[in-house]
Amino acid sequence: MADVKKVVLAYSGGLDTSVILKWLQDTYNCEVVTFTADLGQGEEVEPARAKAQAMGVKEIYIDDLREEFVRDFVFPMFRANTIYEGEYLLGTSIARPLIAKRLIEIANETGADAISHGATGKGNDQVRFELGAYALKPGVKVIAPWREWDLLSREKLMDYAAKHKIPVDFAKAGKKSPYSMDANLLHISYEGGVLEDTWTEHEEDMWRWTKSPEAAPNTPTYIELTYRNGDIVAIDGQAMTPAQVLTELNRIGGENGIGRLDIVENRYVGMKSRGCYETPGGTIMLRAHRAIESITLDREVAHLKDELMPKYASLIYNGYWWSPERLMLQQMIDASQANVNGVVRLKLYKGNVIVTGRKSDDSLFDANIATFEEDGGAYNQADAAGFIKLNALRMRIAAGKGRSPLN
Amino acid sequence: MADVKKVVLAYSGGLDTSVILKWLQDTYNCEVVTFTADLGQGEEVEPARAKAQAMGVKEIYIDDLREEFVRDFVFPMFRANTIYEGEYLLGTSIARPLIAKRLIEIANETGADAISHGATGKGNDQVRFELGAYALKPGVKVIAPWREWDLLSREKLMDYAAKHKIPVDFAKAGKKSPYSMDANLLHISYEGGVLEDTWTEHEEDMWRWTKSPEAAPNTPTYIELTYRNGDIVAIDGQAMTPAQVLTELNRIGGENGIGRLDIVENRYVGMKSRGCYETPGGTIMLRAHRAIESITLDREVAHLKDELMPKYASLIYNGYWWSPERLMLQQMIDASQANVNGVVRLKLYKGNVIVTGRKSDDSLFDANIATFEEDGGAYNQADAAGFIKLNALRMRIAAGKGRSPLN
Amino acid sequence: MADVKKVVLAYSGGLDTSVILKWLQDTYNCEVVTFTADLGQGEEVEPARAKAQAMGVKEIYIDDLREEFVRDFVFPMFRANTIYEGEYLLGTSIARPLIAKRLIEIANETGADAISHGATGKGNDQVRFELGAYALKPGVKVIAPWREWDLLSREKLMDYAAKHKIPVDFAKAGKKSPYSMDANLLHISYEGGVLEDTWTEHEEDMWRWTKSPEAAPNTPTYIELTYRNGDIVAIDGQAMTPAQVLTELNRIGGENGIGRLDIVENRYVGMKSRGCYETPGGTIMLRAHRAIESITLDREVAHLKDELMPKYASLIYNGYWWSPERLMLQQMIDASQANVNGVVRLKLYKGNVIVTGRKSDDSLFDANIATFEEDGGAYNQADAAGFIKLNALRMRIAAGKGRSPLN
Amino acid sequence: MADVKKVVLAYSGGLDTSVILKWLQDTYNCEVVTFTADLGQGEEVEPARAKAQAMGVKEIYIDDLREEFVRDFVFPMFRANTIYEGEYLLGTSIARPLIAKRLIEIANETGADAISHGATGKGNDQVRFELGAYALKPGVKVIAPWREWDLLSREKLMDYAAKHKIPVDFAKAGKKSPYSMDANLLHISYEGGVLEDTWTEHEEDMWRWTKSPEAAPNTPTYIELTYRNGDIVAIDGQAMTPAQVLTELNRIGGENGIGRLDIVENRYVGMKSRGCYETPGGTIMLRAHRAIESITLDREVAHLKDELMPKYASLIYNGYWWSPERLMLQQMIDASQANVNGVVRLKLYKGNVIVTGRKSDDSLFDANIATFEEDGGAYNQADAAGFIKLNALRMRIAAGKGRSPLN
Repeated sequence: MADVKKVVLAYSGGLDTSVILKWLQDTYNCEVVTFTADLGQGEEVEPARAKAQAMGVKEIYIDDLREEFVRDFVFPMFRANTIYEGEYLLGTSIARPLIAKRLIEIANETGADAISHGATGKGNDQVRFELGAYALKPGVKVIAPWREWDLLSREKLMDYAAKHKIPVDFAKAGKKSPYSMDANLLHISYEGGVLEDTWTEHEEDMWRWTKSPEAAPNTPTYIELTYRNGDIVAIDGQAMTPAQVLTELNRIGGENGIGRLDIVENRYVGMKSRGCYETPGGTIMLRAHRAIESITLDREVAHLKDELMPKYASLIYNGYWWSPERLMLQQMIDASQANVNGVVRLKLYKGNVIVTGRKSDDSLFDANIATFEEDGGAYNQADAAGFIKLNALRMRIAAGKGRSPLN
Repeated sequence: MADVKKVVLAYSGGLDTSVILKWLQDTYNCEVVTFTADLGQGEEVEPARAKAQAMGVKEIYIDDLREEFVRDFVFPMFRANTIYEGEYLLGTSIARPLIAKRLIEIANETGADAISHGATGKGNDQVRFELGAYALKPGVKVIAPWREWDLLSREKLMDYAAKHKIPVDFAKAGKKSPYSMDANLLHISYEGGVLEDTWTEHEEDMWRWTKSPEAAPNTPTYIELTYRNGDIVAIDGQAMTPAQVLTELNRIGGENGIGRLDIVENRYVGMKSRGCYETPGGTIMLRAHRAIESITLDREVAHLKDELMPKYASLIYNGYWWSPERLMLQQMIDASQANVNGVVRLKLYKGNVIVTGRKSDDSLFDANIATFEEDGGAYNQADAAGFIKLNALRMRIAAGKGRSPLN
Repeated sequence: MADVKKVVLAYSGGLDTSVILKWLQDTYNCEVVTFTADLGQGEEVEPARAKAQAMGVKEIYIDDLREEFVRDFVFPMFRANTIYEGEYLLGTSIARPLIAKRLIEIANETGADAISHGATGKGNDQVRFELGAYALKPGVKVIAPWREWDLLSREKLMDYAAKHKIPVDFAKAGKKSPYSMDANLLHISYEGGVLEDTWTEHEEDMWRWTKSPEAAPNTPTYIELTYRNGDIVAIDGQAMTPAQVLTELNRIGGENGIGRLDIVENRYVGMKSRGCYETPGGTIMLRAHRAIESITLDREVAHLKDELMPKYASLIYNGYWWSPERLMLQQMIDASQANVNGVVRLKLYKGNVIVTGRKSDDSLFDANIATFEEDGGAYNQADAAGFIKLNALRMRIAAGKGRSPLN
Repeated sequence: MADVKKVVLAYSGGLDTSVILKWLQDTYNCEVVTFTADLGQGEEVEPARAKAQAMGVKEIYIDDLREEFVRDFVFPMFRANTIYEGEYLLGTSIARPLIAKRLIEIANETGADAISHGATGKGNDQVRFELGAYALKPGVKVIAPWREWDLLSREKLMDYAAKHKIPVDFAKAGKKSPYSMDANLLHISYEGGVLEDTWTEHEEDMWRWTKSPEAAPNTPTYIELTYRNGDIVAIDGQAMTPAQVLTELNRIGGENGIGRLDIVENRYVGMKSRGCYETPGGTIMLRAHRAIESITLDREVAHLKDELMPKYASLIYNGYWWSPERLMLQQMIDASQANVNGVVRLKLYKGNVIVTGRKSDDSLFDANIATFEEDGGAYNQADAAGFIKLNALRMRIAAGKGRSPLN
């Protein structure tokens, strides 16, 4: 067991991390600093203060990180049209590096030599927290109680809480969700419970943020999103900060039944796992960003981004946000967005995000060339013959030597 | 102008290719063989016979290629979860290599030295037809009338038809769609007309195959798709041929408002162009295929497929189906599907394709390892510490030497 | 500590693995099966039998794996022109999966429930052995003494040997190389000692297999290599088995001062490490294989192979030979070699491998098209204008809208 | 034929471009501006002035572009360890975009509406010149005489010269090399002649820049190269400009028999072609750059660079230097070089470039961790067990479900 003087704990104020807080004090006999962040999870963060104080914590950090989260993490990720395994918008993954960064900043401010978190030893989050922490403070000690202690069932945890007089919100504990959940401004996730059978349909009352498509309004909602350098800066012409944008898109999207997802994904630690996600704003943003890029981005730039995207997505999913390779890719992605400016019009209706228009002063769409009508010489159709002939040459030579693609 | 003895024409029976037929006879003073294919476009192909006969064609080919189309082209493509530029399911692109192949087969059978088609000099289809033809018969001559003649407006075309007594279905010509369209069993596409302004919303009455989400039924439809080696072999337990599968999925999907798309895409010949597509069955298949792969495919195999997919999609879009590099990629893709067997359950509702379950005898999902409950030792959480430590090592060394990801 | 009944040990007969043998017997109180392989390392393997018998081993496997090694591991790898980090020919990496496979085969034959090896906890070899073993026998137990015991210095090891009466070849032990070495038919490697300072030049007397370029003959040696499906099947017209080919190329290459390498590489476990390698035959094979591919392989197939090669090399380096993604890539690579037939002529001189000719019945080199002389119409230079114009179109449109690559 | 007022001609002063000059004046009846560049080809550029004047040219540009060439083109390319098709160092390719840029700059300065060059219709250079020109000035007209005129043999060219009194250096013309050659500070190339048979050995007296390995000194030369941000800034401690560096490395390399290459490559226009190249300085730079990166670059950054390199090399080879995708890749490449500082020591001997040492204040090589000796706890060998276990997990699960890599 490591010798620890002071540890910064990512503290939600809930039962699990309260037990961890106590367990750290007792087991490591060290001082604990708590850090509680508002990332838009939709729960009050202030109550964590009193709980921490009650357990004798002297240094308590409670931060509203919503703007930083969207501006420096969510938006950069969406510039790459990032999706993990064709479906997942990385709602949990993208919040972890910010928490890791704050844990280390606080450790540096308070002179702590360790950090601790409540992620289990089976999941991706432990990796994301710890890779981030090590990249930012290589000598930091990491305490991951779920990998160390023996409180591996809920009963043991409750017993521990009772025995150590940790205040448990029993009302809440009693009606605990059967799911393991995580939420921030980008999404809310559900794992465990009946989802552990991949054939069982998810339950309608599991979802918390979105209306079902069935329950969504019968008339569509139209919105216009204004982009500057690949980021949304206004909705329906009204300028907004990044967190305002995402909050509003979550509201509109959720209202229209948008952004539910039920998948089986591959964890970095090696097993498959089923997750359900609600990402209303993100689902809208992905579609809209592709639409604005479709008229402003060069073809080969767009294709290169598409080819690198799965790699970039895996880096984020696996916890490598603070790695040099993610930073290098980001420079390329950001550079590609210089001309990604303009407006996208969307129709939202019962789960559907339908692009109905896109325009830009930086549009590369040239109606004069693309037209099916006569173009007055803007494009010389005869050029196509030579283009095809030379592109075919290597295949013609091969076929001439007897190689056939039909064999 | 090339010296041509006999040319095989891809002949639809419509006005454009009828004019081409006549123009070839007059301009090249050569014999014309017509080839008309049923690819599931939803129009009768037999009427083309009488029209061709009326213009003196002696060798007339009319083929039902629907099964071959889905079995050898559509299904192999879907094994790769293929999407061009994040959105387009390649409905037009994937039909062209089959037509090219048949043109060359017929040329070989009839002793023709040339082929001809009705694609314009601005589009991708000319490239797809001709690259395929050259790869299969390197010495073939290609006549692309739209790149050669001066009948570049509809009026000139009508005049030519009238002057040469080409039978025009004036009723049909009169109510001609304002869109340039293409259809086969995978999709129907629309280009031109009001779509040439990227900001103008597409018109509701443009769509021909699908109900709108608004008009779709208010109650969802559930279906179960059975996969063998990555291909659908049964719907709701009933065995079907490839073309039957796609026909039925088009029916169910269209009924439920699924598969509409409005995008701006990058053509191989260099310009951006707007297209609207209805791909009801394909939209269902993409989602379902990812779902069955999610439980049966190894993580790294899935990721490698995802990284190569954009390249594979571009090859198909650009007309390189018969190239050696597409064939090489296909071998890898097909090899990956050996264990992609099982059943996917979907809920279809007003444009939404919602995965609600997936099961397989070849599933790699291990509930015992993935569970949030105690797993009886199936997974040793302590392993994660070493896993993270070594993955972090290079970043820790770098940070220890003063490199910070925050600079 | 795992409960082990019988363990198969990769046993060289040297001091280290002899100590391991004894330590396994004592520590795990289990039966030990020894496995000693001739992979072309140039040392007798039979002496291992008597040593094992002296320590009471009843089941002793001594295998000549040279042909299998080259045929099923080295040759398939060279089909991809595989190089790790631009320099390293993977001589150690490629032998490990074969050893892992034999360990598991022997475990299955002898009813052993564990395997053991002498690789340290800092290197790549432990990963390669164990990933292979787990992929082939998922429930196998692995004992890696260097990660478990406390005999971490040479003195402690010698003490242990003395105390347990393990026969040590003191003559040999006394003049022990200052380097950590590994050899097989593909290469011999050196690590440690003075090489741990990256600025210190390697010592001339370290090298064991090759003459120095200075000491190599003053007249060049010419050889002709015959390829079939990407593999060498004859040298100077004389048919040879795979192991014969590599043995002979090692001889010729070594004689001519070919194949020395001094690099700093990145280990999978996270640190940089310096290695020196002698790979005379492999260095020749890499150059020659590229030469035969240069006239027989399609351009895009060659480029796709080049783009995937670094990934493939990392898979082998990191120990993923038996992974599904390596197997999938291999199918593509092997498929690409169908026409890689012909002859390459090389000039070998004082460290240089110079290609002086290549010919093939499957050559795609068309002198008639490539010629600088008049080609009689084989290639129409006017086609190039259209080819360039359409390839430039997207950039012209962008420039026309004011985007400049000079900004 | 285009209507041209004034054309800028890339003019070498030799026979071919002198004929082109005259032919442009006569055929297009337009004013010609000549542009002659010193790119380090080793021939006087000033004589071009008198020749151009003699043919009535009023605007004559003669530029020494050597520093710009190495600083802005060669060095950036070497930051990526760029090689085309595993062998070619892109000596010709990398000079073309600079010439294209100057042609357009001069066109803008002189009010010319066209450019012209002496590249043939079969090669890559026409593509490189013209893609560059179009990207920089989209409306420019391009005249490529070799694609237009009928002077396709040397005899016709000589006749034309005689008839139009174009001064021919008959002494030089008489002893004309049998090869088509191109030279600049990075390399000299040879094509055509006996090289058109891929089996014929290149002739020793073809080579112009380098000694043969046989003729090179019998004692090695040691040099030390100092890097800053991935570029060489000093040789043996003496600061030099980019062009000085390359000039000096060419001298030393050529003296030591370094940098000859004989390959068959795939041209962008579709055929295979044999080329011989001398790149003495570049061959040294490639090796040395990898060596300095080996101690200063993060592993994953290095691997990502390696994976993207073939794409980047093709972009340069194919003429896309001024494309947005090359520029985007360059930003990533340049960003990766921030810490590529230090010194590499090389031993040059009869064609061999041998790395004997590398050191850097930014080295990530940590002898304390890499050592085979006891490391005092810098690295915990036990971590490796968990690392391997989790990396093996997916394969163990698959094997447990009956999937075997041996089937």
